[in-house]
Amino acid sequence: MEKLILDCDPGHDDAIAILLAAGDPRIDLLGITTVAGNHTIENVTRNALSVCTAFGIQVPVARGSERPLVIEQVIADDIHGATGLDGPYLPPASFELDPRHAVDFIIETVMTHEPKTVTLAPVGPYTNIALAVRKEPRIVERVKQVIAMGGSYTRGNITPVAEFNIYADPEAAHVVFSADWDVTMIGLDLTQHQALATPELQERVRAVGGDISQFILDTWAFVHTTHNGLLDIPYPAVHDACCVAALIDPSAFTTELADVRVELEGRWSKGQTVANFQTASGMRHFGGTASEQKDYRTKVAMTLDWDKFADLIVDCTKRLTEAKAKA
Amino acid sequence: MEKLILDCDPGHDDAIAILLAAGDPRIDLLGITTVAGNHTIENVTRNALSVCTAFGIQVPVARGSERPLVIEQVIADDIHGATGLDGPYLPPASFELDPRHAVDFIIETVMTHEPKTVTLAPVGPYTNIALAVRKEPRIVERVKQVIAMGGSYTRGNITPVAEFNIYADPEAAHVVFSADWDVTMIGLDLTQHQALATPELQERVRAVGGDISQFILDTWAFVHTTHNGLLDIPYPAVHDACCVAALIDPSAFTTELADVRVELEGRWSKGQTVANFQTASGMRHFGGTASEQKDYRTKVAMTLDWDKFADLIVDCTKRLTEAKAKA
Amino acid sequence: MEKLILDCDPGHDDAIAILLAAGDPRIDLLGITTVAGNHTIENVTRNALSVCTAFGIQVPVARGSERPLVIEQVIADDIHGATGLDGPYLPPASFELDPRHAVDFIIETVMTHEPKTVTLAPVGPYTNIALAVRKEPRIVERVKQVIAMGGSYTRGNITPVAEFNIYADPEAAHVVFSADWDVTMIGLDLTQHQALATPELQERVRAVGGDISQFILDTWAFVHTTHNGLLDIPYPAVHDACCVAALIDPSAFTTELADVRVELEGRWSKGQTVANFQTASGMRHFGGTASEQKDYRTKVAMTLDWDKFADLIVDCTKRLTEAKAKA
Amino acid sequence: MEKLILDCDPGHDDAIAILLAAGDPRIDLLGITTVAGNHTIENVTRNALSVCTAFGIQVPVARGSERPLVIEQVIADDIHGATGLDGPYLPPASFELDPRHAVDFIIETVMTHEPKTVTLAPVGPYTNIALAVRKEPRIVERVKQVIAMGGSYTRGNITPVAEFNIYADPEAAHVVFSADWDVTMIGLDLTQHQALATPELQERVRAVGGDISQFILDTWAFVHTTHNGLLDIPYPAVHDACCVAALIDPSAFTTELADVRVELEGRWSKGQTVANFQTASGMRHFGGTASEQKDYRTKVAMTLDWDKFADLIVDCTKRLTEAKAKA
Repeated sequence: MEKLILDCDPGHDDAIAILLAAGDPRIDLLGITTVAGNHTIENVTRNALSVCTAFGIQVPVARGSERPLVIEQVIADDIHGATGLDGPYLPPASFELDPRHAVDFIIETVMTHEPKTVTLAPVGPYTNIALAVRKEPRIVERVKQVIAMGGSYTRGNITPVAEFNIYADPEAAHVVFSADWDVTMIGLDLTQHQALATPELQERVRAVGGDISQFILDTWAFVHTTHNGLLDIPYPAVHDACCVAALIDPSAFTTELADVRVELEGRWSKGQTVANFQTASGMRHFGGTASEQKDYRTKVAMTLDWDKFADLIVDCTKRLTEAKAKA
Repeated sequence: MEKLILDCDPGHDDAIAILLAAGDPRIDLLGITTVAGNHTIENVTRNALSVCTAFGIQVPVARGSERPLVIEQVIADDIHGATGLDGPYLPPASFELDPRHAVDFIIETVMTHEPKTVTLAPVGPYTNIALAVRKEPRIVERVKQVIAMGGSYTRGNITPVAEFNIYADPEAAHVVFSADWDVTMIGLDLTQHQALATPELQERVRAVGGDISQFILDTWAFVHTTHNGLLDIPYPAVHDACCVAALIDPSAFTTELADVRVELEGRWSKGQTVANFQTASGMRHFGGTASEQKDYRTKVAMTLDWDKFADLIVDCTKRLTEAKAKA
Repeated sequence: MEKLILDCDPGHDDAIAILLAAGDPRIDLLGITTVAGNHTIENVTRNALSVCTAFGIQVPVARGSERPLVIEQVIADDIHGATGLDGPYLPPASFELDPRHAVDFIIETVMTHEPKTVTLAPVGPYTNIALAVRKEPRIVERVKQVIAMGGSYTRGNITPVAEFNIYADPEAAHVVFSADWDVTMIGLDLTQHQALATPELQERVRAVGGDISQFILDTWAFVHTTHNGLLDIPYPAVHDACCVAALIDPSAFTTELADVRVELEGRWSKGQTVANFQTASGMRHFGGTASEQKDYRTKVAMTLDWDKFADLIVDCTKRLTEAKAKA
Repeated sequence: MEKLILDCDPGHDDAIAILLAAGDPRIDLLGITTVAGNHTIENVTRNALSVCTAFGIQVPVARGSERPLVIEQVIADDIHGATGLDGPYLPPASFELDPRHAVDFIIETVMTHEPKTVTLAPVGPYTNIALAVRKEPRIVERVKQVIAMGGSYTRGNITPVAEFNIYADPEAAHVVFSADWDVTMIGLDLTQHQALATPELQERVRAVGGDISQFILDTWAFVHTTHNGLLDIPYPAVHDACCVAALIDPSAFTTELADVRVELEGRWSKGQTVANFQTASGMRHFGGTASEQKDYRTKVAMTLDWDKFADLIVDCTKRLTEAKAKA
């Protein structure tokens, strides 16, 4: 089983990430940490507990950072609504928060498990991860890998070139992409343009029936309306779940190595992930000079096997629905 | 007839731009101005004269700027070779340069023709155009339009996000994109990915026969070898000719309005054209804030009717070949 | 008594700051936290324990951040030598480190004392303070004040315009200067040009006699040699001690209110503290526009009463020397 | 005699620069070029003609750039009033503008005089000079020297760290400071803090009597009122005249060599002249790295012999007054 800490800001697609993390037998979900992003830390933390309750699961949930490392806070309430998870019914939490700060939860969990066994999946702004790296640098060599939702190697969704998670805390993203660990970046090129909840997938989830199915359908119905006019995509994007799916079944994804740098200084491109691919040897300049050293350390997700991805969502919906029925 | 000043840095694809500008009866080519870009000003000016000579044409050719407005010079000799136009035989010039500096040639030509009749087509770095705008701001309202080769709304060709012409003189590009005139940006999304000299097109040009046909084939043969390994495209891109084609036959292109800003400050994205499309209302932030005013003034080229484009190249090759035979 | 946490990177002048913090009866030194800055975290932490041992004092010492928030590490071994405190004899530590990370020590100490009673005095890079603010934002309203060594409103000492502590972690400095608490900036204008260990002061310290006197004289002797050629000052600067002196006796300092911004993006001015003084109403532009709101929240130290400052140093040297003799 | 082109934006202190340039027998004033700066190009050009008329002189006056090279225009009407030269009576021009653009006037004048004989003194934003350098790079090696008013190595006057002329066109200043010619930078450290029209100087000018004396006194009276509250200086600063004085009598100035870089990218420090002095070997970092090469090519003015400077102003007032009386 793959040990996982899911660092999230629910958030509609975060809920599907929790679904996969809790519902797939190949994942050992060590805990959920929350971070301000899609909405305030109060709301996303409340939502994390509500999602767990709705899904009939209980894992440690630790509250994290309430604002970005350096810049001012930006939230995405135009996508996620006033609660950060408008649409589905949010049940009151059935259990308490872990008393630790997310940063300490991450550090202690990583340092007390065997080296190279714990995966971090940040699917909101990377603030908690960056603070953990700076407070306890030894986690960098101790985690197994980081599978991060965020960025894009073409166009953005909050600015023409920046994706929300990176734009919301670019300095934290810089810390994550520049640390010497195994990082997979699953960006918009995959999550917003390939990982869509098509009518077919929605129908399959509907066929499962029950509260969890309904919860998921309600999240998709809501973001479908807010995506309209803001993003040029036909169906709801299931961004965050991709990171968990990539941990469950890496064969559902192809990746390419790239040198990924977060633009921290641009007037129009701040928060962009500038990806120089190893395979495209044609990028003759990088960082303003011809001589800049290239460091192809990041695995950038390129293509998704949509059928495998859809199966995971349907299977986890079934599995949690059955488990909840038994409980 | 459309009056045109072609501002170029030959350069292989520049030669095809000259071919269309001189060979199509719908264009009144008022002059060619040169600018350092693909190679030094000495080489690109010599090449401009040689190309005209090879094509059997004579128009005013005025030498322009030897380096960018603000930054240090970058050239693309890895693509265009040691002469800036390696490959074809470059005949000695059969006529003299215009005595004027390109900047003055542009200003005087625009100011002495009827208002709104002259089109500027910069297909190298925009240094000459920027200097002309700053020296004589009245040209801005007097030209008919600017059709510029450069930029990209997705990925670049000299850095992961910047196209060569913009990267080579970003401040000049800023002057051009921010001036209050009718600007069409024909970027890599079109020129490098749609305007390719396919085997079919090469065969049709070969069928014309003669020196001009050979010259063109030789340019394509050369850049095909240098493109290999540097750019991930199967056939030679005919970037610059697109600007002339768009003047000859606008119906061969579709465009969308966008607010295009040149990144002048980024650490990794300097020289990028950040394009915020009017049709994608989803770019909620721009320029670092949610409130930034959007100014959808630039027509960004989206799609090319390749058949029409190929016909133009073949027709102009025939027409100039016949004219040269008669001369 | 003024409760104090001294956050430092000993460092020669840090030793004098510890001398004042431990030797003056008006200060209740709650603890010393260390941060990478003048030298690596290993060396400055070892030095902090050695200085305490040399001075015959024992307070909690908590080890902190080993590198800056965002940028790469810079140290000042050209000033402070290979150990970070070359010159005096460094005795082995007579007590153990506090088990907590400096960030947690700061948070827990501030949150468990009465509101508005604890002063933070960061005299190295502000990394620990910034991490503490981000991990537990409530400390901002709970501390009494921050008295920080760093910055300059004229010229710098590591670049022409940047002072070392700010340059070494500009993003952390931004967090400190932009938080809504009472901040006093004691910069080079005061510390490097007014707070000097003149021959007269050195003579008075020598007259005290004993190990502590010798330790202090040895620190000054060492930096006098490294200052030569690097800084244009006649005597050793006693930078960090100024923050403790300002807490002991505010009457020894004059301050003016300013809007202080840390330059995070400049090519040549990164790490500069740009100070717009309330009294100089003439700064018509700020932040690139005429309309930028001014926020005069930082107290910038302007002048030092050198006699009072010198007396503090001499008195504390005597007091600790006598206490050590009794022990 | 020293051949001079005075490039200015009158502007009150510009008038005194014209006084010295036309009134001192050691100067051969080849022409005056105008540039938008203190006010619009229309106003400063009209003012240049009016000042010449008031002073009874006639030299070629060529109109120049109406806006900066790259950025948006900023003017200083809060200092110079609605006309750009409020206060004195501005007589209608007694002669016509030179038909050439200032950029061409500069180029042609420099290229037609003997090499190394013509001095350029830009005392407004350096837009014309930068455009001339880019249009005709050979002027760089042909001029004798550039004596430029602008910048500061400590604090600014339009922002806390930027001086107006540089801030108004930083990219042009970059072109001037990075070109390979002999440049003297006379910045605020000298012009605003040493070159003041004290009551004593005003009295000596008053004693000369006549229209020219009155004109000068009126300019000082006006800026004395606008300086109040905007700048913290007791008497009117005579910035621009320093450049002409330095050409007439270099012995009135001391200079030091520095590597001067214009900050083009800073959020808070844009337009600052970051000066790394050769004599202060202590600036260990420059441009963000320890290894940045230092290029001590700019002579930065440090001290002014005020008596010599005042004598020049009084003498030229007398000389022009007498000449006008004879005419």
